[in-house]
Amino acid sequence: MSSQPIRIVVIGGSAAGPKAAAKARRLDEHAAITIIQKEADLSMASCGYPYYAGGVFDDRNLLICTPAGIVRDSGFFEKAKRIEALVLTEALSIDRAAKTVTCKHLPSGATRTLPYDKLVIATGATTLYPSVPGADLEGILSLHSLEDADALRAVRDAKQVRNAVVVGGGLIGFEVCEALHLAGIQTTVIEKTAAILPFLDAELSKLVANYVRTHGADIIKGNGVAAFLGEDGKLTGVKLDNGTELPCELAVVAVGVRPNATLAAAAGLTIGALGGIAVNEFMQTSDPDIYAGGDCVECTSLISGAKVRAPYGDLANLQGRVIGENLITEGSAKFPGVTHTGICKIFDYTVGFTGLSAEQARAAGMTDIETVTVAGLDIPGYMNGKLLVSKMVADRKTGRVLGFQCIGPGDVSKRVATMAMAIRGQLTIADLANADLPYAPPYSLALDHVIVCAHVMENKLLGRMKGISVTEVKARVDAGADCFILDTRTPREFEEQRLGIGETLIPQGALRARLNELPPDKDREIIVYCAISLRGYECAAILQGYGWRNVKVMEGGVAAWPYPRER
Amino acid sequence: MSSQPIRIVVIGGSAAGPKAAAKARRLDEHAAITIIQKEADLSMASCGYPYYAGGVFDDRNLLICTPAGIVRDSGFFEKAKRIEALVLTEALSIDRAAKTVTCKHLPSGATRTLPYDKLVIATGATTLYPSVPGADLEGILSLHSLEDADALRAVRDAKQVRNAVVVGGGLIGFEVCEALHLAGIQTTVIEKTAAILPFLDAELSKLVANYVRTHGADIIKGNGVAAFLGEDGKLTGVKLDNGTELPCELAVVAVGVRPNATLAAAAGLTIGALGGIAVNEFMQTSDPDIYAGGDCVECTSLISGAKVRAPYGDLANLQGRVIGENLITEGSAKFPGVTHTGICKIFDYTVGFTGLSAEQARAAGMTDIETVTVAGLDIPGYMNGKLLVSKMVADRKTGRVLGFQCIGPGDVSKRVATMAMAIRGQLTIADLANADLPYAPPYSLALDHVIVCAHVMENKLLGRMKGISVTEVKARVDAGADCFILDTRTPREFEEQRLGIGETLIPQGALRARLNELPPDKDREIIVYCAISLRGYECAAILQGYGWRNVKVMEGGVAAWPYPRER
Repeated sequence: MSSQPIRIVVIGGSAAGPKAAAKARRLDEHAAITIIQKEADLSMASCGYPYYAGGVFDDRNLLICTPAGIVRDSGFFEKAKRIEALVLTEALSIDRAAKTVTCKHLPSGATRTLPYDKLVIATGATTLYPSVPGADLEGILSLHSLEDADALRAVRDAKQVRNAVVVGGGLIGFEVCEALHLAGIQTTVIEKTAAILPFLDAELSKLVANYVRTHGADIIKGNGVAAFLGEDGKLTGVKLDNGTELPCELAVVAVGVRPNATLAAAAGLTIGALGGIAVNEFMQTSDPDIYAGGDCVECTSLISGAKVRAPYGDLANLQGRVIGENLITEGSAKFPGVTHTGICKIFDYTVGFTGLSAEQARAAGMTDIETVTVAGLDIPGYMNGKLLVSKMVADRKTGRVLGFQCIGPGDVSKRVATMAMAIRGQLTIADLANADLPYAPPYSLALDHVIVCAHVMENKLLGRMKGISVTEVKARVDAGADCFILDTRTPREFEEQRLGIGETLIPQGALRARLNELPPDKDREIIVYCAISLRGYECAAILQGYGWRNVKVMEGGVAAWPYPRER
Repeated sequence: MSSQPIRIVVIGGSAAGPKAAAKARRLDEHAAITIIQKEADLSMASCGYPYYAGGVFDDRNLLICTPAGIVRDSGFFEKAKRIEALVLTEALSIDRAAKTVTCKHLPSGATRTLPYDKLVIATGATTLYPSVPGADLEGILSLHSLEDADALRAVRDAKQVRNAVVVGGGLIGFEVCEALHLAGIQTTVIEKTAAILPFLDAELSKLVANYVRTHGADIIKGNGVAAFLGEDGKLTGVKLDNGTELPCELAVVAVGVRPNATLAAAAGLTIGALGGIAVNEFMQTSDPDIYAGGDCVECTSLISGAKVRAPYGDLANLQGRVIGENLITEGSAKFPGVTHTGICKIFDYTVGFTGLSAEQARAAGMTDIETVTVAGLDIPGYMNGKLLVSKMVADRKTGRVLGFQCIGPGDVSKRVATMAMAIRGQLTIADLANADLPYAPPYSLALDHVIVCAHVMENKLLGRMKGISVTEVKARVDAGADCFILDTRTPREFEEQRLGIGETLIPQGALRARLNELPPDKDREIIVYCAISLRGYECAAILQGYGWRNVKVMEGGVAAWPYPRER
């Protein structure tokens, strides 16, 4: 340690930046490390903003404190980590030839030029706003910064707003929707495209929309914001593309983010096709002495191999750690890429996903795929199990799992984490079909939901089961197709709720004795289902055993039916 | 289908048997399938017995009904599955040359000989009882059959028993312990060996024991049952190996099970060294026309390659499915083996494990392993996160994860399922260190607990962190070793609770300014910790940076300390 200590400058003090700085410090007590942070706070728990805004907890300090209760301010960084943190300071430019960063202290206007040996760019992303009239009215917020969280929390505490609109039906949009709902505000989520939560395939997206609508918030799809309406500079409503006007005193914009890459671009660093800073697997930019990580970069999909944007807090931390290692020991750590995993709580529902949806897989050129939709409980009924509805996507040739989406009141999080690891391990359906998972009734069915998904997939891949989606069934019914629809539940279940699509009820136990009620034409299309289509599948096997050749199981059964039902 | 239908006979009607039968039926509507079941019921949800006995639910029918509420009796099997189920019928012998099974209807004594083309043996296992005096006293139960569950439930409902002893500190023992506790019965668990829950390493096993003792049940370790004591034929107490007498009106035996392999052995089938029926990966016995699955067989460990016994309900179902496929299409399905995954709820704690413990790995000849013990929250503190304490085991050379144990009030089940899949995928620590898991504050920390475990492991494998277990620290302290023990928490944390092992408090933020309080001898052993040893690790890095050469982090920190604490 007799040589000159390495000088590290980190631009950005939210997630990836402080993580890189702290990791570098742990590997080199003598490095000179400086963080330049535009905002007033450091290492904010930004994913917690919706829960603070919604009143899940009230102590704002929890967003900026260590678990031991120490505020993560400049003093903390100095004392605990010997890292100089310059807050309210904006990085203005990078001089790569001179290896300096010029920054400005925003309150005083004073500028300062910092030399570096290694530089980290963790400039994050900026919330996009629709560029429509009225976008500067008072009452239009986003939920990106701690200031935004404070503003939204103040709305809750003031109890003045009665109607709000959330612009954007993605993860953040629904987290905000939940926060507003918890604040007692009547909320409408507006989504420009035809479906909310674009990482879900249509059937599951519709089920979530149904749930949200019946549990306290409205959703308008296929309709963007044409204008924000106001009086005296204050928001009074939102006008949609189709002319509808929704009165509201608050609008929260959550249509996505744009990587903050202008500083990097101005320094001549390579920017990717998606607008993020290009980095290699070491998180190194086109300048080997400059690393970048977090929301401002593009990553590699471990499934499609394509470049993608993945602005998630967990990935920012992982990337920051990799950067921290490489700052001290160049080339020692890699960030291989992402598997597109995400999760969101919406009221008592969870929506999770990992890998690719069928739509995303096809868009990525994977055409030889198979999908299954499966409904089932997370734990046994006698333990008060709750519903899960999932869709699994696999490559038909290799059997490799490509994606998994899961929604419902059940324990989605566990199944998505399990499948995220399965996808990371490039497991096939055959592997999953015999997975040795932790089973006890408080935690799982004897055959866990993800194993059942694999079993159904195996049955489809082997041609034992022909599936048909609820979407296709609805289209068939609406088109007046000549298919025979068979509900195989018990009379009691049928009395309680039925689809009302011209179905015939023959309970499973009676099917073999009532085969004469089935269509005499053995080539006629028969669609079978039950509550979740397990009995439906068994009945399809029976019919095939007696010679019917065109029997399809409606996947997910009644539980997956996102259209109106009778009773 | 003009040929003679295949004749399938299945011996055993609990889990693997009915699953094999039902799967075979789905693949061949015309097969003749018969189940021979010694007990009165079929397809019982036997893993639910502790929860029925403990009053988690009251409707006994839930244990023997389909989710739609139909009792899974012979009539159901006939109508829904066209499977003949002979209940209260015992298989007496197998004639492999004639390909017949002779069975006896127990109530009538009538015998019958059934011809088979393919036979399935799913005879399960029998509860072991300690062969000690008094074992025939009234008041000694087990929890294996539905009758046992009824008996234990009757104990609860009668409210007569005040003191009970559970013999055996494994999974079932603690499930029974919880059920008795819920019934308001003062319970003592007796374990013959030195540690409860033998799939856990000692540190975690001790933490569970501490928890159970402070939450309503007693545990006596290293002491077996010498005799059951009684008066008038009724149990009045248990005498231990060391002479202690525990008064109790109820004893529940849960010391393990023995595979029911006598029928198979009498038929000349190969029995494994562990007493289970030997099967290949198709679940085929030494007679290719006879399959076996469930608690009566031995399986292959996917980690060590060794033969093991794994009497779990989920595996029985998986094996039954594989058998069902092979009955109809020989050689079409494989059960590759197990990864030693299990889980158990004990009051508000969960105990889970997958892969090998350090002790098991060493016993299997894997000597070049590394372990880490990590404590942390499952979700953020501001979301009311709960503690997890885990131990991860990895192969030092390849970095491959070999095992994971996790305990605590937090969401253990998710982490064990995640790691079970990681182990199934043969993932390495490097893979885990950048895992893309579902993150949102209701479900996880930004860096999930399992990722943090991988990070700590990586630090140890790379020699950046030297760890020391709480067990070793305690031994050092008890031996009066000349080590300097450093607690790096805040004064407030220290005031609330401290270990009292001669430690010096220097909060992390003050460490660099107080280096003069550290031992001047840079080779002296320094042991550092904090609440969970994250700050402890950072402080160890600081001390190493200033030249101390023998700094060790006490893994898991205060949260993993299973010995008495001050205050």
